[in-house]
Amino acid sequence: MRTQVGIIGAGPAGLLLSHLLHLRGIDSVVLELRGREQIESTIRAGVLEQGTMDALAEAGVGDRMKTEGALHHGFELAFEGKRRRIDLTGLTGKSITVYAQHEVLKDLVAARVAADGKIFFNVSNTSIHGIESDTPSIRFTHEDEEHELYCDYVIGCDGSQGVSRASIPAALRRDYERVFPFGWFGILVEAPPTSDELIYARHDRGFALVSTRSQTVQRMYFQCDPKDRVENWTDDRIWAELHARVDSLEGHEVVEGRIFQKNIVGMRSFVSTTMQHGRLFLAGDAAHIVPPTGAKGLNLAVWDVRVLTAALVAFYEESRTDLLDAYSETALRRIWRAGQFSYWMTRMMHRLDDASPFEQRLQIAELEHVTTSRAAATAMAENYVGAVAV
Amino acid sequence: MRTQVGIIGAGPAGLLLSHLLHLRGIDSVVLELRGREQIESTIRAGVLEQGTMDALAEAGVGDRMKTEGALHHGFELAFEGKRRRIDLTGLTGKSITVYAQHEVLKDLVAARVAADGKIFFNVSNTSIHGIESDTPSIRFTHEDEEHELYCDYVIGCDGSQGVSRASIPAALRRDYERVFPFGWFGILVEAPPTSDELIYARHDRGFALVSTRSQTVQRMYFQCDPKDRVENWTDDRIWAELHARVDSLEGHEVVEGRIFQKNIVGMRSFVSTTMQHGRLFLAGDAAHIVPPTGAKGLNLAVWDVRVLTAALVAFYEESRTDLLDAYSETALRRIWRAGQFSYWMTRMMHRLDDASPFEQRLQIAELEHVTTSRAAATAMAENYVGAVAV
Repeated sequence: MRTQVGIIGAGPAGLLLSHLLHLRGIDSVVLELRGREQIESTIRAGVLEQGTMDALAEAGVGDRMKTEGALHHGFELAFEGKRRRIDLTGLTGKSITVYAQHEVLKDLVAARVAADGKIFFNVSNTSIHGIESDTPSIRFTHEDEEHELYCDYVIGCDGSQGVSRASIPAALRRDYERVFPFGWFGILVEAPPTSDELIYARHDRGFALVSTRSQTVQRMYFQCDPKDRVENWTDDRIWAELHARVDSLEGHEVVEGRIFQKNIVGMRSFVSTTMQHGRLFLAGDAAHIVPPTGAKGLNLAVWDVRVLTAALVAFYEESRTDLLDAYSETALRRIWRAGQFSYWMTRMMHRLDDASPFEQRLQIAELEHVTTSRAAATAMAENYVGAVAV
Repeated sequence: MRTQVGIIGAGPAGLLLSHLLHLRGIDSVVLELRGREQIESTIRAGVLEQGTMDALAEAGVGDRMKTEGALHHGFELAFEGKRRRIDLTGLTGKSITVYAQHEVLKDLVAARVAADGKIFFNVSNTSIHGIESDTPSIRFTHEDEEHELYCDYVIGCDGSQGVSRASIPAALRRDYERVFPFGWFGILVEAPPTSDELIYARHDRGFALVSTRSQTVQRMYFQCDPKDRVENWTDDRIWAELHARVDSLEGHEVVEGRIFQKNIVGMRSFVSTTMQHGRLFLAGDAAHIVPPTGAKGLNLAVWDVRVLTAALVAFYEESRTDLLDAYSETALRRIWRAGQFSYWMTRMMHRLDDASPFEQRLQIAELEHVTTSRAAATAMAENYVGAVAV
């Protein structure tokens, strides 16, 4: 089997890359461990920056996002019982769209299928070969048959636990990691919205996030022990915790409803450099992880794909390799920016049991600052909408 | 002995307060443990914010500052061999003056002496009494005689180790502290300036600060172990370290000269609340300490004194106590702002042996951000010149 670009992973990075390349006449094959139904139903958050919205629209997969997603012009920071708004559009001229990641995936899969794109689901035993040569390949098993996919380039979009990053020799890589001693407990609940915009709340009991999915379904998160178990949290206990953390805010009251999904996610910051070796390039979670606080994960994956698409197009259309050579360096500028922003916002909003009382009190000083200094609010808003220069 | 306001400590806070009260016809007495020569010769850094310059000028002690101090319109941030300027005046419309703290003290002492101000130097056995009553007093020994100074209010400007803070019952106080695992090694050297503006340099070997005192004397600092001893540092070793940290910057080269002063200072962030109890009020280092990175120490002391002067004037001229009642809360808003800024700048610029490689690498991302985003640079400049709203 042969293609121009072999892509491992059918997440947002892999599928969008495959589709953008297709639109420029470049052939690719996507290999995915999971089944189509599984990737289309794994519920994730989704805050899309302007650049991500633009990329999806340009790829022709933005219609449902525009009609079903919710355009937000600001969000709120809550602390000490106060609610303060960050006016994203007023400060930056840009907005964000709240549209769940698995909905983006559905749109991308549908577009690839409609264009006869080659996606192999439920593959196993994936391995990468010859990336230091001009003839790399990917071996994999599909429906009990072994295959070898020959290609010009291998793109690893297979997430943090995939085979791609490990295929770059360890001596050439440097990993930077910070694991946070807390996680998020997430629920989906049948209830009306209690706020038009997202509320990021800092509370002495821990962080909480009030977000919305629709007029009838809400998504809420609260800081928890990442080693805790969902079974330890009855509905009553969840509501008591949410009431304690976000009912004290001026004019806000939690509305209870039927909780139909509960999960706990750990949180870490991770960046692996280099993102390329020979004919192998990494994109998205395969190279970097951010805590969900800044909502940057999906947006960074899309950014990597845009940089990589431009580089591959330059190669196929103009035989230029300079953009490919510079890929890691180019992508990493934005990755470090978003990584720093996510880390900063995480540290400002969460209960930090590992910090001194002095550092805990600085959270209030910093929240007062970003909600009263126009310059500081603008810097935060630029980062949140992804409008910061890198 | 009786006065209206009894002031403990003849540092910038105590002396400026005494003089400002005098200008409004309010009588005070200042008590100081050290001798006049000692306080006038203890060398400290001195970056004066616009508000501090204005306060000194209004107090009639700004003439020498204006002629001998150096007005700076920006400073530089150096990292990864690059030098990037923060244009303070362009971003905020304000400037700073570099004028050493002991020169400010000389001007203040001279003004108090010229106005027949009462300052007792070399006092001992200072103790505070009756602050919960309407008739507080300060007992002290001067020239082997015991005295009791009766006053309406006692103002503790006696620094971090003084008796004043300890006179507020521990049960009413809450202390917030962060001791940094590094200090600054400072030198004074006979050499020409190597930069027009201060250079704050982040280097893998540790932080360094290039500052200037005059055309013939320079002040330089570099991060060191706070437990190290000055004797361990020969001139040759000092120069080797400075060459390593700040010669690599584009267009900058250290010029060696005769080193005539060396010292090591530890670094910590500290805030004590409340700053008042009954008839006792704390100002300056007696209530809060910042690391020297943001150059906020003297400026915060002056801010406290301005708030306190307005409150005391309101009491004596209008019999109002509302401003006195609100003193701690009012002063603390700015103290936490400056405390957060100093902590942030310290963490961004110093080698952090206690942080993960991820957090160390974020320093570069943050320095790139504040030197490329106009909003982020403005937020930093506002804090540096003291123009941020609190």
